[in-house]
Amino acid sequence: MIRPMLLAGALLAAPAPALAQRQAPPTPAPVDHVVAKLRDAALTDTLAYDIVEGLTTEVGQRLAGTEAEARARTWAVARLRALGFRNVHVEPYQMPVWVRGEETAEVIAPFPQRLKLVALGNSGATPAAGITAEVAIFRSYGDLANAPDGSLAGKIAYVGNAMQPTQDGSSYGANGVGRFVGPALAARKGALAVVIRSIGTDAHRNPHTGGTNWPAGQQPIPAAALSVSDAKLLERIADRGGPIRLHLTLTPHFTGQGESGNVVAEVPGRDPKAGIVLIGGHLDSWDLGTGAIDDGAGVAITTAAAKRLLDGPRPRRTIRVVWFGAEEPGGFGGREYARVHGRERHATAQESDFGADRVWRFEVNLPDAASSVTDRLQSALAPLGIGKGPGVGGDGTDVGPTIALGVGSVDLNQDGTRYFDTHHTPDDTLDRIDPAQLAQNVAAWTTMLAIVANAPEEIGPVAPRK
Amino acid sequence: MIRPMLLAGALLAAPAPALAQRQAPPTPAPVDHVVAKLRDAALTDTLAYDIVEGLTTEVGQRLAGTEAEARARTWAVARLRALGFRNVHVEPYQMPVWVRGEETAEVIAPFPQRLKLVALGNSGATPAAGITAEVAIFRSYGDLANAPDGSLAGKIAYVGNAMQPTQDGSSYGANGVGRFVGPALAARKGALAVVIRSIGTDAHRNPHTGGTNWPAGQQPIPAAALSVSDAKLLERIADRGGPIRLHLTLTPHFTGQGESGNVVAEVPGRDPKAGIVLIGGHLDSWDLGTGAIDDGAGVAITTAAAKRLLDGPRPRRTIRVVWFGAEEPGGFGGREYARVHGRERHATAQESDFGADRVWRFEVNLPDAASSVTDRLQSALAPLGIGKGPGVGGDGTDVGPTIALGVGSVDLNQDGTRYFDTHHTPDDTLDRIDPAQLAQNVAAWTTMLAIVANAPEEIGPVAPRK
Repeated sequence: MIRPMLLAGALLAAPAPALAQRQAPPTPAPVDHVVAKLRDAALTDTLAYDIVEGLTTEVGQRLAGTEAEARARTWAVARLRALGFRNVHVEPYQMPVWVRGEETAEVIAPFPQRLKLVALGNSGATPAAGITAEVAIFRSYGDLANAPDGSLAGKIAYVGNAMQPTQDGSSYGANGVGRFVGPALAARKGALAVVIRSIGTDAHRNPHTGGTNWPAGQQPIPAAALSVSDAKLLERIADRGGPIRLHLTLTPHFTGQGESGNVVAEVPGRDPKAGIVLIGGHLDSWDLGTGAIDDGAGVAITTAAAKRLLDGPRPRRTIRVVWFGAEEPGGFGGREYARVHGRERHATAQESDFGADRVWRFEVNLPDAASSVTDRLQSALAPLGIGKGPGVGGDGTDVGPTIALGVGSVDLNQDGTRYFDTHHTPDDTLDRIDPAQLAQNVAAWTTMLAIVANAPEEIGPVAPRK
Repeated sequence: MIRPMLLAGALLAAPAPALAQRQAPPTPAPVDHVVAKLRDAALTDTLAYDIVEGLTTEVGQRLAGTEAEARARTWAVARLRALGFRNVHVEPYQMPVWVRGEETAEVIAPFPQRLKLVALGNSGATPAAGITAEVAIFRSYGDLANAPDGSLAGKIAYVGNAMQPTQDGSSYGANGVGRFVGPALAARKGALAVVIRSIGTDAHRNPHTGGTNWPAGQQPIPAAALSVSDAKLLERIADRGGPIRLHLTLTPHFTGQGESGNVVAEVPGRDPKAGIVLIGGHLDSWDLGTGAIDDGAGVAITTAAAKRLLDGPRPRRTIRVVWFGAEEPGGFGGREYARVHGRERHATAQESDFGADRVWRFEVNLPDAASSVTDRLQSALAPLGIGKGPGVGGDGTDVGPTIALGVGSVDLNQDGTRYFDTHHTPDDTLDRIDPAQLAQNVAAWTTMLAIVANAPEEIGPVAPRK
């Protein structure tokens, strides 16, 4: 069954006329009418919107390890119980908690200009009065990497990028390196502090936060993201030549260990031996917006889809919905889940954590014995405008540690074209969510659950993708 | 000449087939080839972009009466002299200076939520520690107006609106009342403070500032604008019923009298008796963005157009370009100009102060004896996609006091559809400017100047529009 599947994937990804002439067109698997009915009904779903509206309005930002995230767990438990889910509970754990402080920046010379920026998660701090230093301009991470060791002593490094929107989000990895490890690299070269151009695809005044990483033994230095608009301004000032002096104040700090937790809810299955279908998103958010697209939408979509199965005949497999905690600062909830539940049998694991725009593609990692499941997914998802992609499924920070144990996956890829316009910014609010696209997500997840949770095939372990 | 003009205007505004059948189609005035050549060359203008790029990069925000506005005047004089304009000088005056302080707001109950807001210009202040009070929700200015006197004692009033984009900007007046006089009205009804939904057409986290007005004898109360996104959040919280408590800190203050000034430059004309053609925009900006669309674009467009006339044969009439000061806090520069220059003969006065998007319409107020000028404008502007509108020209805070003395006007109306997405927000930056649309503006202004400044007709006084 592999060849026809690959062929169908190739046809969807890009026409291959020569190949199509040589082989008969694939015969789509028939769509079960119960699945089709569930799918089509979900296109008018309002529950997902209600959940994300409620979470953003009644809780708002939910920074990991803070009392706000704790309030969000309380809200989640009440909501999931009210919806009728079973076995609703919190699984708590400890994690280091980082909180934002003051964050201001001003170009002092050659032209006085206030700049908008936000500290990156895990950033170190300046003294309360700030620091003033010359800026070393690097238009890209590559330019920074080529700077001689020690050359940044006494300087604030600026690291640019040229991120552009991509439907599959691939530009995030390529440009995100400037945030993920740029500050640590600058620190090793002697920099006092780092300001990066936000990892974002807009040109507005909302800076994009996000975690940065320090290798063991590296003392964190102050690290912040300028809004893309402000980064472009700084580069225009640099274009005029001559030194740039920046005054920078950043006073975030770690408050010590704090409690986070995963909220778990279930749709019980008929056959405990068939394995759990794990779905979910993350409950925590960055502190700037209200966590609508990242990731209120994800918990809302997966919960609304599971609710449709909960309200019907009991599925073969248990569907476990997890609202993971503390994803943003480093995937604490996902690792904790795998530690606690990794020895339970899972059929598949997949998450929704790429906004609220429509699903355009699916990719799987399923054992050969279950390839007919993929055929049925392909037929049933096609009317939603979803084609099979060329890659192997298994994305996601939260389900990643579970998938790494050899669990299969059905990824429902959302359109990321506008995701990085507001990702990790103050602008991650309910206003970003299009109810029609959100409902299409629910329909896709409902379809997937109806097929996978009820599949008569054995869904055994897989080799995790590289 | 009035009937054909009106007919042509009606045809451009909306087809009127019955009328067209009854009358012969109007014969457009021929376009002078010198005018056409100037117009078409201006479509590749880069000077306007250079000016607004320079002003936003090398000066940035230019709050009226501050040292930043003074730096902007110095920048302007140097730039205008370097371009070869004559009689370049500053005309200074005094004005009361208002500056922003701290501005934070948090919903305390029922749900803790930080809100983004900015003080309105001329706002009063809370104590440094802020105030906490119950919010009285008014979804519109009309609802506020209907609240009984005294009913807001001890409360913070919230005033909403439902502003939508309009090409001609007409929704600004209709909804702007909530900002212009809403705070004063709430104060009269006893409110401690006022927060309005921003007068804006976006749903982002960039609040829109702008001046508010206090009648003589009214002590200013704290008055701020929530971002539209935050206003919608507050309304969603209100939808759930029950009291809302808000903690609000606003510490703006008046610093006393300060210096502002108008920067004046000229293209000398051949015939002093023919009257001055006054054009310009305002140099000051609000302090949140860098004043690109409001109104760096306006001074850039009009200056770039005048430069094209400066570089050609000396026009009949003197073209006077003014970069007005202190428009935002209350039109100080425009009043000062009329006070100093009102007795000089002006042929027409017009300004560019509605962003940087393309000119879509023109409207005039010219004496009957000069109606052929309007005909020539209509023919020459048509290839730029500009039609004659049904109204009477004479818009603008800066030229208003001069126009009120009986001076004619040729308004070049810009497309305002997206103007109020970022107007008066931190997002008023160079990124908002589309170079191609900016150049179309320069072409429109160049065309207007080539026709009006060289018109052989007498352009005498007019009755100002009502």
